Formats: sequence, C-alpha cells, structure tokens
Amino acid sequence: MNPIRKLVICGVGLIGGSFALALRRAGMVRRIVGVGRSQHSLDRAIELGVVDEVAHSWADALDGADLVLLAPPVGQMDAVMQAMAPHLAADTVVTDAGSTKRDVIEAMYRHLGPNLAHVVPSHPIAGAEKSGVDAAFDALYDGRKVVVTPLPENEPAAVLRVREAWEACGAVIHEMPPHDHDRVFAAVSHLPHLLAFGLVHDLAGRANAEQLFGFAASGFRDFTRIAGSHPEMWRDICIANRQALLGELDQYLAELAYLRALLLSGDGERLEQHFSQARDARNAWAERALTEPAVPE
Amino acid sequence: MNPIRKLVICGVGLIGGSFALALRRAGMVRRIVGVGRSQHSLDRAIELGVVDEVAHSWADALDGADLVLLAPPVGQMDAVMQAMAPHLAADTVVTDAGSTKRDVIEAMYRHLGPNLAHVVPSHPIAGAEKSGVDAAFDALYDGRKVVVTPLPENEPAAVLRVREAWEACGAVIHEMPPHDHDRVFAAVSHLPHLLAFGLVHDLAGRANAEQLFGFAASGFRDFTRIAGSHPEMWRDICIANRQALLGELDQYLAELAYLRALLLSGDGERLEQHFSQARDARNAWAERALTEPAVPE
Repeated sequence: MNPIRKLVICGVGLIGGSFALALRRAGMVRRIVGVGRSQHSLDRAIELGVVDEVAHSWADALDGADLVLLAPPVGQMDAVMQAMAPHLAADTVVTDAGSTKRDVIEAMYRHLGPNLAHVVPSHPIAGAEKSGVDAAFDALYDGRKVVVTPLPENEPAAVLRVREAWEACGAVIHEMPPHDHDRVFAAVSHLPHLLAFGLVHDLAGRANAEQLFGFAASGFRDFTRIAGSHPEMWRDICIANRQALLGELDQYLAELAYLRALLLSGDGERLEQHFSQARDARNAWAERALTEPAVPE
Repeated sequence: MNPIRKLVICGVGLIGGSFALALRRAGMVRRIVGVGRSQHSLDRAIELGVVDEVAHSWADALDGADLVLLAPPVGQMDAVMQAMAPHLAADTVVTDAGSTKRDVIEAMYRHLGPNLAHVVPSHPIAGAEKSGVDAAFDALYDGRKVVVTPLPENEPAAVLRVREAWEACGAVIHEMPPHDHDRVFAAVSHLPHLLAFGLVHDLAGRANAEQLFGFAASGFRDFTRIAGSHPEMWRDICIANRQALLGELDQYLAELAYLRALLLSGDGERLEQHFSQARDARNAWAERALTEPAVPE
C-alpha cells in the first residue's frame, strides 16, 4: 500500500481518532488533518497527537487531500457533505464510518455526485464503552470487521485504497452491496434493540410496573440489557435504517404470528421443535463467537 | 412455627432436595420421606442425606404426613396428583413448586377436590445452573422470593403453614392471586424467552443465516442468551401458561405496532421519547436489582 500523504478526518472522536492513530501506527500516513465543528475536540486532538493540524475550512482541509474519513455525528453527515462538495478534488478518495449505509449513500448521491467514482462507503464494526477523542486508541480496529459497500460508480482503485486503509488499521474487510448491509444490521443489531426497548416500555407503562420489575430475573436482565442503550443514538440508527428495519420487523412479526398460533392450539410438539432449532443455532453461534470477542454496541 | 413431624417430598431434585435440606438446616423437620419415579435418584437422595427414607407407595408416603411438597417434572404433576389423591388425609397440607400456577391448580381441582382447604399452590423463584439431587443445597432459597397463590378454598392455617415452611428455608413470601402470578411471569420471563427463541429461529432459517450470525455482536449475544435455554422445559412452561402468555404477547404486539408506525412515518421525536422512557426504566430497575443477585432461569 502506498502511504497516504494527506489524510483528513472529519469528526475526530473515538472512530475517527482511532483510525488516525492506527494508520500512524502502521506508518501509512504522513500528515493528518482534523476538521469538525467542535474547536474544543479538535484542540484536544492536537494535544493528544491524534492529528497533526486542524483545518478551519473545507477548502483548506481538502487541498491536496488523498483520503478523507467522514465520521461526524450521524445527524451532521448531510451538512458535512454539502459543505465539502465544492472543494473535493477529482482524485481524492472519500470513505465514511456510518453504521447505516442507505441514508449516507443517499447523501453521497445528493452532494458528491461528480465524485462518486472515488466515494466508497464503509462501516467499521468497532466500538468501545467510551466515546470522544480521549477514548481513541490505535488498536480499536485490530481483528475487527469492516464492511465496505462499494457503489456501482466506484472505481476499483478507489475501493482498493479504502480496503487497504482499513486493513492497515488491523481490520478484516467484508464487501457487500449497501442494501445487504442494511438488512444484515437491521436483523442482528437494530431489530433486537427495538424489541428490547419495546418490551421495557410496554411493562414500564403498566399499573403494576413495580410488581413486574420486582419479579424480573436473569433472563429479563440479559434480554433487556440493550434497552439501557443511548436513546438518541438508536433513534438516529432506526430512523436512518428504517426501510431495512421495517423489512426485518415484518419478518419477525410473521415469526411471532406462527408462535402465537402454536400457543393458541397448544401445539407443544412444534413449539419444542422451534425452540430446539433456535437453541441449537444459538449455541453453535455462541461457540464460534467465543473466538472473537463481541464488539460493544 | 411448629416443626414438621413428617415431610414428604415428591420429586427429590434441585428444588425438592434443597427444600428438604433447608428445613433440616432450620431444625424445622423431624422426618423426611422421598417419593418419586426414579429409584436411582431416590437412592442417591438417601446416600446424600437429603431424605431419611424412601416410600414405595403413596399410601406409605402419605401415612401421617404433615406437609407434602410436590416438585416432580412438569409433565408428571397431573399423574402425581391423581395417584396421591385417594391417600391424602384431611389435615395434611400440600404445596407445590411449579413455575406456572393455572395448570397446576386445574390439576388440584381435578384430583384433590376434597382437600382443597389444605392445598396451597406456590412458586419458589429459585434455580441454579445444575439440576438433580446432587445439585441440591440448603441455601438455595436464602433471600429468594416465593410466590404463594392461595386458593379461595384455602384455610388460613394451611396458607400460614406453607408460608412458614418457605420462610424457614430463608425465603421472602409474596402472596398474590394465581391469575396475577401467571401474567407477571408471562410478562417478565416467559415472553422474553419466546421472543428470543423467535428471533434466532427466524434468522437461522434464512438463506444468509451464516452471514447474519457472522455480524452479530454483543447486543445480539445478550438479547439471545436465553434462546440457549432448554427447549423441553420452555415448551412445557409456554404450553402450561399459554393463556397468560398469549395475553402478554398480544400486548407486546400492540407495542410493536406502535413502533412500526413510528418507523413508517419517520417520527424520530416519538421514537426517542419511547427509547428514553425504556432506557430510564431499565436503568432504574438494574440499579435496584444490583442489591439482589438475579436468579438463573
């Protein structure tokens, strides 16, 4: 991989900051420029040595930029792309780190149309309990998966550049179409969060909520752990990915309709078959997953 | 509390065996008799000192019995009550340890009609990873809740006897009508298991199941942990408690319909309110629950 001469990080938090540190650790980048809305965070990023300098305009940031990582807060992505568009050179490669792709890609089409050959969406499956530039560290992506979802317009060289950058961070690349990405994460991440929030909200609204929670034990604890997640972040994810999420929810509602019918007819045999299949699949997955520490969501 | 002269345990496993050991620890029982279908388990119970003797017929078991705990496998409860009925004396107090009440109570009405004054259903919220008489220990019920669900026919003295016995084991008693019990546990225990089995079964049946499970992370792990549970046990519980479970499932489906509508209309504000309420309720519960180790289900 050719080193990156000038890397631009928009949103120097846990994700963007760790990307910068990891590439520096790999000796793959000469100059790192931070850009964003929070002067305080950017000053801290300089202090911590996460970036070399801060740009105060997109014109300055993008001048001579080789690779740009967009990792701002979810709600700012559209404004970011709109602001950077006039200054984006034809040969600069752009990627992002968003947990949803459809909405980010729609913004890419909306604002970065002329540059689509070099705009390659991605989603690093990485996280930590804490956020912000103080939490950034160079090993965040070690052994982690990064999903790259190339656009039809992407030039192979640009896709390769983005893959190489994430690999230099220690990650393992998985390529798939954006639509597949959104359905996969709707199924295994977004829907479970929705379901857990739903159960807790349902029970919390009951007249006998205190009694109910009083008898909740370890199963409830595990099932609802993710209902302790950040409401704003999950609102953003669910709204951004709502099309895929609705598709997954509807599949799941069909599954519940089936279970409902089995209960209604007292069909213990089919219920046991269903539970057995689920138990076997879950245990098989849990065994494989032991070799790979689960990423906090 | 007057000591129990003759205690009969039907089903000397984790639950029945620990009840025996706890009462012995409390000095509250003179003679413990085990009865059941598995001669091997009963021999082991004698070996371990969990019971003093084994009865080979209900006539022998119930002769002069003061208190009887019914803790056989769920599927055997009906047969047990049918077999014991002819030999049950008017003043013997009977209780059980079943996780569901409606079905057990229906069996009580069906077989123990003349004795209902002294037949007091209960449900100890206690468990451990292992089962069987080798797993039994005298502290299983320490600090645990036991739900006692008296029948309208119960004599207060019989209810008191059952309460005192569980309290002597170290438990904290909660009394409530059987219908309430079944709805509470459907909501906080049975439904979450059904929902977790449902999601895993749904995804495991997909053509891209391997890909899906490949991207499942910590949220999925927590949400689906209870899908690793015993399919036969949970089939029995769900079938036994299906009336209450259907009621809870329908409430939950209404909750999901609401969330579905919010997603469809892209109502981020209401979604965030919903998630916030859930998050606050979950966190408040988790803090209170820290003072009380969660019982494995």
